[in-house]
Amino acid sequence: MIRSPDNDKLKTIRKLAQKRWREKLGLFVAEGEDLVEAAASAGWEPRFVLRAGADVEPDLLAAVSALGSGSRVIGVYEQRWASPGGDLSVWLHGVEDPGNVGTIVRSAHALADGPVILGPGCADPYSPKAVRASMGSLFARPPARAGLAELPGRPLALSAHGRQALREAPLESPLVLCLGGERGGLPAQLEADAVRIEVRTESLNVAMAASIGLYEAANRMAAHG
Amino acid sequence: MIRSPDNDKLKTIRKLAQKRWREKLGLFVAEGEDLVEAAASAGWEPRFVLRAGADVEPDLLAAVSALGSGSRVIGVYEQRWASPGGDLSVWLHGVEDPGNVGTIVRSAHALADGPVILGPGCADPYSPKAVRASMGSLFARPPARAGLAELPGRPLALSAHGRQALREAPLESPLVLCLGGERGGLPAQLEADAVRIEVRTESLNVAMAASIGLYEAANRMAAHG
Repeated sequence: MIRSPDNDKLKTIRKLAQKRWREKLGLFVAEGEDLVEAAASAGWEPRFVLRAGADVEPDLLAAVSALGSGSRVIGVYEQRWASPGGDLSVWLHGVEDPGNVGTIVRSAHALADGPVILGPGCADPYSPKAVRASMGSLFARPPARAGLAELPGRPLALSAHGRQALREAPLESPLVLCLGGERGGLPAQLEADAVRIEVRTESLNVAMAASIGLYEAANRMAAHG
Repeated sequence: MIRSPDNDKLKTIRKLAQKRWREKLGLFVAEGEDLVEAAASAGWEPRFVLRAGADVEPDLLAAVSALGSGSRVIGVYEQRWASPGGDLSVWLHGVEDPGNVGTIVRSAHALADGPVILGPGCADPYSPKAVRASMGSLFARPPARAGLAELPGRPLALSAHGRQALREAPLESPLVLCLGGERGGLPAQLEADAVRIEVRTESLNVAMAASIGLYEAANRMAAHG
């Protein structure tokens, strides 16, 4: 039973709240029973798991939670990176909010066969908020990293400035839906042929736009193939 | 220039972080220039606005931020509640996460003509996290409150357990898409005729499901009407 905040495992968990330590160690933290179970279901061996009351004093575990949610169980895992692929996937560019990145990981797992591919300027998908938002999909479908030139299919930009409606655009596989951060947008060569979701307002949340785009593409590909 | 944390306006802002005070006073807080501008664009008069450096010492304003984002401007407004209505709207039941409620307010503003209607057990749409997630749509399209018997159209449950695919279901106006919290779900009488979004996983985030449902319904209504 861990009774000191100076314990090495607790120190590791504290470090992993920071991106530079996640990169240096190649590890990340999953907080809560749901996520630790999702990891086990997907066949991920933890480096270690700490359970409040069994392995560690509950107050000490709560104190290292990056989510401030008073988690009763915390697991530490090795990061995995997938290769880009699939008939349908998503490429993100400058999506800085970790909650949005995690939510898109979850939606892509639900609606597509390929991973979420992270381009430049995106939030770390292994940050605590992103892991939480992915609700375990990160374990079932780890993310990939790639530049625009390395995508595994036709890149199609989904943007508020698109000239053609998504509903009327051809969506043949292999397709990579490309979405930019709400402030920075996408590289200009992608914006030129972008499609749009018809809205009454200026914009949608990027995770909503990604989910709608994946839904439309997945349904159209299922209908045609 | 406010120089004391005991100032009445600062006290009010601190109180409004709590739901019981928001209900008692009928007020809420919007943090950040984007939201205060969105309020002005939508014609909302603030009770008051405090700007760091102009009206209040920056540290004192940062200290009352409920989002911990170090906002440079905070506005306090009177809550407004819309009447249910429109050809297309959303009813939420037991959606407890304020970020999801705010995101759905934003998506409904983008894709539908009716307000988000809050049923029992939902997060307060005027909580700081919900206001932030709505990105100003709360001002343009205030939420409504109603029970299942008071809905302004045919209630159609969108649920992971739905027997018919959303893509194949008739979606005629006036329609009210009904979504339940990720844990509690919807009342049984709605689940019986629910439609589903076809996914590879157990579930979608409720805000994603709402956005996809609104997109599908809005497009189908536009095509037929």
